[in-house]
Amino acid sequence: MTNRGTRRGGRRGAAAAAASGENARKVDYHNLRNPFPPMSVFSDDEIANMHDTALRALEELGFKVLLPEAVAYYKAAGARVEDDMVFLGREIVEAAITSAPRSIVGRAGSREKDITLELGRLVFQPGAGAPHATDLVRGRRPGSAQDFREYTQIANHFDVFQMMSPSVEPQDVPTHLRHYFTTETVLMLTDKFPFVFARGTPQVMECFEMMRDFRGLDDAGFEAAPHCYTIINTNSPRTLDIPMAQGLIDFARAGQLSIVTPFTLMGAMAPITVAGAITLSHAEALASITLTQLARPGAPVCYGTFTSNVDMKSGAPAFGTPGHFQASVAAGQLARQVGLPWRSAAGSAANLNDVQAANENQMGLWGCLMAGATVVIHSAGWLEGGLSVSYEKLITDAEVLNMVAELCAGAQAGPDEIGYDNALSHVDPSGHFFAAPQTMARYDTAFYDPIVHDYANFGTWTDRGAEDINVRATRYWQDILEKDVRPDVDGDKLAALQDFIARRTEAGGAPPES
Amino acid sequence: MTNRGTRRGGRRGAAAAAASGENARKVDYHNLRNPFPPMSVFSDDEIANMHDTALRALEELGFKVLLPEAVAYYKAAGARVEDDMVFLGREIVEAAITSAPRSIVGRAGSREKDITLELGRLVFQPGAGAPHATDLVRGRRPGSAQDFREYTQIANHFDVFQMMSPSVEPQDVPTHLRHYFTTETVLMLTDKFPFVFARGTPQVMECFEMMRDFRGLDDAGFEAAPHCYTIINTNSPRTLDIPMAQGLIDFARAGQLSIVTPFTLMGAMAPITVAGAITLSHAEALASITLTQLARPGAPVCYGTFTSNVDMKSGAPAFGTPGHFQASVAAGQLARQVGLPWRSAAGSAANLNDVQAANENQMGLWGCLMAGATVVIHSAGWLEGGLSVSYEKLITDAEVLNMVAELCAGAQAGPDEIGYDNALSHVDPSGHFFAAPQTMARYDTAFYDPIVHDYANFGTWTDRGAEDINVRATRYWQDILEKDVRPDVDGDKLAALQDFIARRTEAGGAPPES
Repeated sequence: MTNRGTRRGGRRGAAAAAASGENARKVDYHNLRNPFPPMSVFSDDEIANMHDTALRALEELGFKVLLPEAVAYYKAAGARVEDDMVFLGREIVEAAITSAPRSIVGRAGSREKDITLELGRLVFQPGAGAPHATDLVRGRRPGSAQDFREYTQIANHFDVFQMMSPSVEPQDVPTHLRHYFTTETVLMLTDKFPFVFARGTPQVMECFEMMRDFRGLDDAGFEAAPHCYTIINTNSPRTLDIPMAQGLIDFARAGQLSIVTPFTLMGAMAPITVAGAITLSHAEALASITLTQLARPGAPVCYGTFTSNVDMKSGAPAFGTPGHFQASVAAGQLARQVGLPWRSAAGSAANLNDVQAANENQMGLWGCLMAGATVVIHSAGWLEGGLSVSYEKLITDAEVLNMVAELCAGAQAGPDEIGYDNALSHVDPSGHFFAAPQTMARYDTAFYDPIVHDYANFGTWTDRGAEDINVRATRYWQDILEKDVRPDVDGDKLAALQDFIARRTEAGGAPPES
Repeated sequence: MTNRGTRRGGRRGAAAAAASGENARKVDYHNLRNPFPPMSVFSDDEIANMHDTALRALEELGFKVLLPEAVAYYKAAGARVEDDMVFLGREIVEAAITSAPRSIVGRAGSREKDITLELGRLVFQPGAGAPHATDLVRGRRPGSAQDFREYTQIANHFDVFQMMSPSVEPQDVPTHLRHYFTTETVLMLTDKFPFVFARGTPQVMECFEMMRDFRGLDDAGFEAAPHCYTIINTNSPRTLDIPMAQGLIDFARAGQLSIVTPFTLMGAMAPITVAGAITLSHAEALASITLTQLARPGAPVCYGTFTSNVDMKSGAPAFGTPGHFQASVAAGQLARQVGLPWRSAAGSAANLNDVQAANENQMGLWGCLMAGATVVIHSAGWLEGGLSVSYEKLITDAEVLNMVAELCAGAQAGPDEIGYDNALSHVDPSGHFFAAPQTMARYDTAFYDPIVHDYANFGTWTDRGAEDINVRATRYWQDILEKDVRPDVDGDKLAALQDFIARRTEAGGAPPES
């Protein structure tokens, strides 16, 4: 910083220097630790009762497992089995909790993009898995390959998204070839920790092979650490379907990461109470985590929940509600008891990126933050309860996440910051601090610089066109796409990947399993 | 509840009953206790250093006090005085902190509308003091008497606003008569704890007289408890102007409540660091609190701050920023050390009620909540950094505050809520909980019922006109105004009030002092 300590004419000088960007702030939005004190919604005794009830449900009510290979794992561990019903003793579950790792390093395209998942860490993932995409230029449409590429590239732009999501479903790519397209795209357009869908062993194994080779690893190197992750949704209540059970086994055996997520809507597929819904979710999560540890003790797995409520008048899912918030907090209490890294989720039920969408997403986000969630899924861009992702919402939510990342950095209060000598004693009553030594030393680094929030006064803002933030957000994502920044990619590895895809496509691809 | 326990055909029956509103939820949004764990941004040592530096600043740098009567109070207490500069020893400040009450009951129009201010309580006030009003029907305009009446009536509708604010400035009412208009309006249209501007002794004394008589009290009864409050802004840095100093004295002598609020913008009228700005704010708050206790030991007073940062590129105030959030949290740490009830503030710099406005306000709100603020000022409706209040934003922010109030109520996790017997064991794998006994007993009371959030799916929402939430918010405030619900008012007391106002108006009113 060349001008530190020199007087530049106070406010005008500071403003000019700040506007020139000559001394950019140093921020680290990648390695975040949650600075918010964990909240409790239930007492320790209540949490213990919920844990005990979940174990009792697994023992006495059982868990329906549609994949015979998974049933066999449970049976071999000592579970009582009747056809596809598994009655899982608590000692089997407790052994699995013990063998699951407390800290997981997810390997990305470069070491500085690796992520560490453990209690206390904080990782954000952009909104994921939507069948539709929407933006203010082209409107709402079924997700396409172009949308998948664009959404991936926009999300990759923001350091605060430390892991990639399945984003939007490229519906114009045939399902038996879709995993080739998505894998090639995420490896070319991002170097962050990538996602792979668990849509049956053939697709999963091909994805692992593509990632292994693109990362320049052999089987042992690939399996020594997770290089990708999947999300495992149970079919609540108490059902694990074939591709999900297979995914838990395939990812565990290959040392890759499963994030277990019962998606339980209170009043529909889960009890109407937070305590009941989270007890069910806990049971399903524990049974799923157990399967990973039976397939490979020590396999990387995250605990998780995504629990909100339906609107009892219409049956429609709602997000960012008090129930959603409390469910995250309750899940956090159980996660801390279990000791594993875990995920929760934000999200919005709104149909456009309006004030409802913003308020729902942020309410859901604060639930996750105060719950101590390690991973916040759907932290940005998610509309319609996940039926669409919005390009503008991805930008406006990223602004919020950037501010949360700033809060993770904390603040200092040494003598220089308290500033008796360099600020307080320099300014007369009713004076200003523009030229105080403390201000001069910090004017271009003190504050977060927003991406689309606008602080212009009403007159200036009107003169500039009286824009809604969504207009600025549109320009922001258009600019990201126009600049088309991509990570460095090894040309030989890319050629090999494309050759692999061509050969497998020629051979007929791999249809998803259901 | 007539249908509890009877089967009504599951989801359809529950939906129909819920839609009929036949068994409304019981909620209490008036008496709130903050359920969020208090956050710290600085260590205990750092906070102690900030407190000590604030006391040192008052002792060594001094505090400019423009009202001779206030200077005389400080001098009589032992402060060193040079002209209008007061150098305040820490023993005087510490004695004042000791004599200020830890718990304050603000008396409203009825006992159930009274508020208790003490650490751990949570009270919201709608956005206040704006020169302009705006709504989607009539656009942005200078505040008028009509706006003041309407804004008061809309705010009064929501239980979650437990105290009234100065809302919007009725610029079409002459300044020497304005306090008659505002006092009459708030006494007629609300029965909540009211606000009085400290604009000089003549206006303040007339407001006290009007309130005393309207509440049917004598002087002793009025002065025995606060029946109104004011906000005292210092002129940062380190200046207390004439009307503010006079207000502190007048309110204290009459046993009415002052909420002390240095309004410090980091990088402008305050140090550029959170630690420095809050140290300055702390010093100014302590000096102001001290004056109330010198005027009347035990007088009701709240600690407070409103600290955010400017945008260093433009000098414009910014709100809902990381700096704003951290400043609230740091102030909360100092407030807990001092032990007094205290206020912080949310707010937005946006120029319309868009996603920026929502995100800024909610970010500022969470700073206040995690700081443990007793009173959250500007919790709704505030745009342009306070230069306008938005009717639609008042509604959409009230939705967020309602949800926070729901979180204050907590959740239960007894056997009925965990629901092994009445829910979990009743539903087969992959089944649904619509007809479980637990659901049937709770379907119409389980979840918060939103006021303007819409959970319709995209098709239904499109068929209904594809409305932005602001359209629904407009209908909502229009409906409140159309219904024109008012508290019961004693006709004789109202006639006496209006007679008082007519006589005083005839006599020339009372101009504000500055």
